[in-house]
Amino acid sequence: MSADLLRTVGEVRAAVAGARRAGRNIGCVPTMGALHEGHGALIDRAVEAGDFTVVTVFVNPIQFDRREDYEAYAISLPADVEFCGRRGAAVVFAPSVAEMYPEGFATTVEVPSLAQNLCGAFRPGHFRGVATVVAKLLNIVQPDTAYFGEKDGQQLAIIRQMAADLNLPLHIVAVPTVREADGLALSSRNRRLSEAERRIAPLLHLALEAGRRKIAEGSRDPAEVRRAAFAVLEAEPAFRVEYVEVVDAQRMQAVDAIAGDVRIAAAVWLGSTRLIDNVPA
Amino acid sequence: MSADLLRTVGEVRAAVAGARRAGRNIGCVPTMGALHEGHGALIDRAVEAGDFTVVTVFVNPIQFDRREDYEAYAISLPADVEFCGRRGAAVVFAPSVAEMYPEGFATTVEVPSLAQNLCGAFRPGHFRGVATVVAKLLNIVQPDTAYFGEKDGQQLAIIRQMAADLNLPLHIVAVPTVREADGLALSSRNRRLSEAERRIAPLLHLALEAGRRKIAEGSRDPAEVRRAAFAVLEAEPAFRVEYVEVVDAQRMQAVDAIAGDVRIAAAVWLGSTRLIDNVPA
Repeated sequence: MSADLLRTVGEVRAAVAGARRAGRNIGCVPTMGALHEGHGALIDRAVEAGDFTVVTVFVNPIQFDRREDYEAYAISLPADVEFCGRRGAAVVFAPSVAEMYPEGFATTVEVPSLAQNLCGAFRPGHFRGVATVVAKLLNIVQPDTAYFGEKDGQQLAIIRQMAADLNLPLHIVAVPTVREADGLALSSRNRRLSEAERRIAPLLHLALEAGRRKIAEGSRDPAEVRRAAFAVLEAEPAFRVEYVEVVDAQRMQAVDAIAGDVRIAAAVWLGSTRLIDNVPA
Repeated sequence: MSADLLRTVGEVRAAVAGARRAGRNIGCVPTMGALHEGHGALIDRAVEAGDFTVVTVFVNPIQFDRREDYEAYAISLPADVEFCGRRGAAVVFAPSVAEMYPEGFATTVEVPSLAQNLCGAFRPGHFRGVATVVAKLLNIVQPDTAYFGEKDGQQLAIIRQMAADLNLPLHIVAVPTVREADGLALSSRNRRLSEAERRIAPLLHLALEAGRRKIAEGSRDPAEVRRAAFAVLEAEPAFRVEYVEVVDAQRMQAVDAIAGDVRIAAAVWLGSTRLIDNVPA
């Protein structure tokens, strides 16, 4: 199978309208390209649901707080289109920056109260850029279902809130994080790691697992859980820790005491690469 | 004819889905109720286009910068429903505040660069509230066409920009301002005027007409046009002028020189009532 590569809003709307007339439900998997098995799991979920699956590939300039990060975000569109076709997606929508942000573009969408903490505290404007582009993409594709990865947990919380608040007529499906055999969460950024860094990187997941173990052992104190995770990270001098937090699973806000569904989330730098991860606990 | 009064998102979506299955196009007329002939012109335009016409009646708390203004915005829903039915609208969607802003609501939509001047300079947060509620209403109704009055010129510019930027799949139709015989623009706020204020109020339109005459006479200098309008307003001590500006018709931003489509816009207080108006020039 091969996926159709479409570059304009008009083309993707026409393709979606055709699928709707044929009685198909529409699924949307928003990505920034550089597709890996984590994205593959999202696409599989849509295809298995029987959706006419539209994968969007757009490196969104307004969500990068650091220009060098944007510029390093090299995608290979032919490989991504091939990947999507192989997984059974029908369409790859890869618009230009001018198609998404024409001259005079001026609108922002944001969920300020969910964007102050975790990554939001370290990446000013990032989640405003995310919410804005995702609102656009969902309005362009108009899917019945949109699929997002749990790995970007705060992003997922913000998009869920935005979609509910703005009455977007769709369901959001969260797909569990895909990991390497050693536990490292799949991410396009992993390919920037040196060999030495790649050997260290799985400690991020191990640190979160140490926190989870504390909770499994009965701890209800977020500070104690954070200390357990920090201890793993601090043993490796190559890590620079941005945060380790215990948060509620729905809104990804820090909790005072552990009760109900929580997750442990962390962000670290390893050399010039920023890694994030989170686990349920 | 009578219009159906619906109170929930689910009900209005079901009504719209039924109309779509019957092959109808959907028209949406967002209002804050207290309907008058200005709203009537919007509804007429939708009905004449053959739309299945949904009038939304919702006094949006988040767009009021002054609590007493919100509380004074009394609507009479039975009269509004009767009005809509008589004009040929199919549905009145009048949600509760809790239906629109459930516990935990947290998202904002805004067009900051178009909301700094004119009314935006005097009503902090107003246009953020407008853009947010209109995005919601348009996502709930999902019309093919939405109708807005030119009287709220800055609102129209912001909604146009928001709808284009967020790729809302609809057309926006601007409907010319409806006026009393003496030129006063119809507004729900006019009913708050005392008899004496009501006699003075048409001077606002006369002032804008004086500005328009300057341009018709060949002036290309916004300062000169503003002076001509100000002269009319200043002759009446009961007015407190917020602004008189010459703006481009599309974005409603002040122009340095008059060229292309411009409008003259003004806001004044008359006692405790704020009046706005604008005219093409």
